Amino acid sequence: MSDQTQGVRAERLARAALSRVGEPDDAALRLLVAEEGVVGAWASLRRGDGRYPGGRLSGLLPRAREADPESDLARFDRLGGRLVCPADPEWPVGLADLDHLDQPAPFALWARGGGDLSALAARGVAVVGARAATAYGTRVAGDLAVGLADAGVCVVSGGAYGIDGAAHRGALLMAKPTVVVLACGADVAYPRGHAGLLDQARNYGVVVSEAPPGAPAMRHRFLVRNRLIAAMAMGTVVVEAALRSGALNTAGHADRLSKPVMAVPGPVTSALSRGCHVLLRERNAVLVTSVEHILETVRPLGSVVPAPSRAVPRLGDGLPPELRRLLDAVPVETPLATVRIAVAAGIEPRRATGGLAQLVGLGLVVRDDAGWRLSSAYRLCSASGQGATRPRPS
Amino acid sequence: MSDQTQGVRAERLARAALSRVGEPDDAALRLLVAEEGVVGAWASLRRGDGRYPGGRLSGLLPRAREADPESDLARFDRLGGRLVCPADPEWPVGLADLDHLDQPAPFALWARGGGDLSALAARGVAVVGARAATAYGTRVAGDLAVGLADAGVCVVSGGAYGIDGAAHRGALLMAKPTVVVLACGADVAYPRGHAGLLDQARNYGVVVSEAPPGAPAMRHRFLVRNRLIAAMAMGTVVVEAALRSGALNTAGHADRLSKPVMAVPGPVTSALSRGCHVLLRERNAVLVTSVEHILETVRPLGSVVPAPSRAVPRLGDGLPPELRRLLDAVPVETPLATVRIAVAAGIEPRRATGGLAQLVGLGLVVRDDAGWRLSSAYRLCSASGQGATRPRPS
Repeated sequence: MSDQTQGVRAERLARAALSRVGEPDDAALRLLVAEEGVVGAWASLRRGDGRYPGGRLSGLLPRAREADPESDLARFDRLGGRLVCPADPEWPVGLADLDHLDQPAPFALWARGGGDLSALAARGVAVVGARAATAYGTRVAGDLAVGLADAGVCVVSGGAYGIDGAAHRGALLMAKPTVVVLACGADVAYPRGHAGLLDQARNYGVVVSEAPPGAPAMRHRFLVRNRLIAAMAMGTVVVEAALRSGALNTAGHADRLSKPVMAVPGPVTSALSRGCHVLLRERNAVLVTSVEHILETVRPLGSVVPAPSRAVPRLGDGLPPELRRLLDAVPVETPLATVRIAVAAGIEPRRATGGLAQLVGLGLVVRDDAGWRLSSAYRLCSASGQGATRPRPS
Repeated sequence: MSDQTQGVRAERLARAALSRVGEPDDAALRLLVAEEGVVGAWASLRRGDGRYPGGRLSGLLPRAREADPESDLARFDRLGGRLVCPADPEWPVGLADLDHLDQPAPFALWARGGGDLSALAARGVAVVGARAATAYGTRVAGDLAVGLADAGVCVVSGGAYGIDGAAHRGALLMAKPTVVVLACGADVAYPRGHAGLLDQARNYGVVVSEAPPGAPAMRHRFLVRNRLIAAMAMGTVVVEAALRSGALNTAGHADRLSKPVMAVPGPVTSALSRGCHVLLRERNAVLVTSVEHILETVRPLGSVVPAPSRAVPRLGDGLPPELRRLLDAVPVETPLATVRIAVAAGIEPRRATGGLAQLVGLGLVVRDDAGWRLSSAYRLCSASGQGATRPRPS
């Protein structure tokens, strides 16, 4: 092994270890890293070095003794995950802004999923908002995400219930990538009810976290996580937010990073729109009501705004041709057996079963005893006029 | 009669006549008045003077022949109305701004109602919006008007169905004055369904028009009327407006008059909020969600914003004590006979009948065969928490 390869390996181990040992905004740990570099800092902590006065690092020593980055990396690798470090091509360029603004950049990112994080973040827009979203907010977040996905934008959000989930789901309904930035480990299904959503996000995009594998979701981590959402994306859209909310925290990060903050207005009678109205009244956010408004805001001046591929995007536009044919053969209401759908789609029944299961995973199709039919989410989006229309059978 | 008195009388007759003869934005008529003054212009028209080339005034001559300002004034006087002219103390100062901006000031205003138009307009805020308002818009307009009335602001609007009506009604529910600026004659009950509302507006405020008595509502007059609403008030609040709407026209007038334009956001899924969002995104309107936001915007810098009299205003706060006692004695649901209410309120039954009828007119009480009870509007406002609370029986 060359010295250079060994150096890279040591740095990766050190970054994996530091993500295990300290919280990203731990000032004493940052100081140690600034003075000794990540490899030196990790070596000091592992030695239980007492050089730093005041014992400000001593709280980290028990964690450092137990940290086993080799094992973390090996287990994460077995899950199909990877550690993304600042020197890697997949490191999102937006995270460099954190350094410039003296905010803590992550030591490393634990990433899972087939997408390239850097490429996705470069065309990413954060769509965030309340967990306890209303039907209005959920619908708007989903519709905007469908339209953004269709325009080639990657929806970045926090994977939470409510607005975050609706935003991710909108992108996935179009079979387009999305980036989920978790506050817990990237291998932890949190919230539990979003386990399936996280599976799909990995299939079509990336699930990422600066917390080490297995780390539980903790209140403090949600707030530091929000700076990553803001830093990765081109801009942040808040769809619904109460007056005190994590989404306003994300918007604040975006603003400090000089990235556009957008807000969707809502009924003044709704507590869940108050945060949006405060952003618009007092914090100079851009009022957006459509995908076009968002694209206008995030595209650099003078750049060519790519028009959406057609006036009304169709759900599943991003699917591979075979899945697309299957989807076109699934009936709207009366369920149909696998064989019938396979015949209609001109696909071998065994392959059709697997394909239909994938469409179920995407939320486009549901299955019951009588067979397969389109999901209510699919029909809802089709009916709303904004999201999509029913593809014509080919 | 002194020369001066005769001069004043001639001018009033001429202004009454000109309001009958020409539309306020008739350029040829304006030119004639600019050259000859109102008295001279009216004399020329009455003579059928052909001096003006191109026959641009000839279309007005048949109307001029039929005009009978003495009779108009006498009939309007019998209705309890009055003609307000620019020299009168009751002329709203805001109308002078029209002259400065080369927009047509009205020749005169035909006014009905007990309020002083100038005083009311000086503390007036226009609350305008869609006729086909949603339940959301109607509720917000009503709640804002209740709060504005409680803060001593006079609600100015156009008397139409939808937002206008809800705004006037909010002020009247507080038994506070409101100014209705009509596009038809001030003696015409238009729209028909608002005949009762117009009656009440006269009791508590002013119903005013630049159109002569008996003039029907015509499309063109709505648009020219809107400049009066904008010019009279300190600022204009648009509650709900479609993309093409009279409310946006009023907002445009306010903007040209350098008066604050405010807009209430709403669901981005509602076509009736699109006009508001355009005002906020593209026309620099101030986003307002509460009475406080409106007061902050219209009060001149440095002026003391009078606090609302109490945290939660109560419907009927402005009522005379006897009516207030009656209102307190009216049951919420099960109707009560006049005598029972009179006894509970300690008021002579004959007086109670008249008082209860007044409360019906204000929209606070309804009557059926079984007796009197509180109106659903009253209960709605009480329930919304913003508008008012049920007064405790005294």
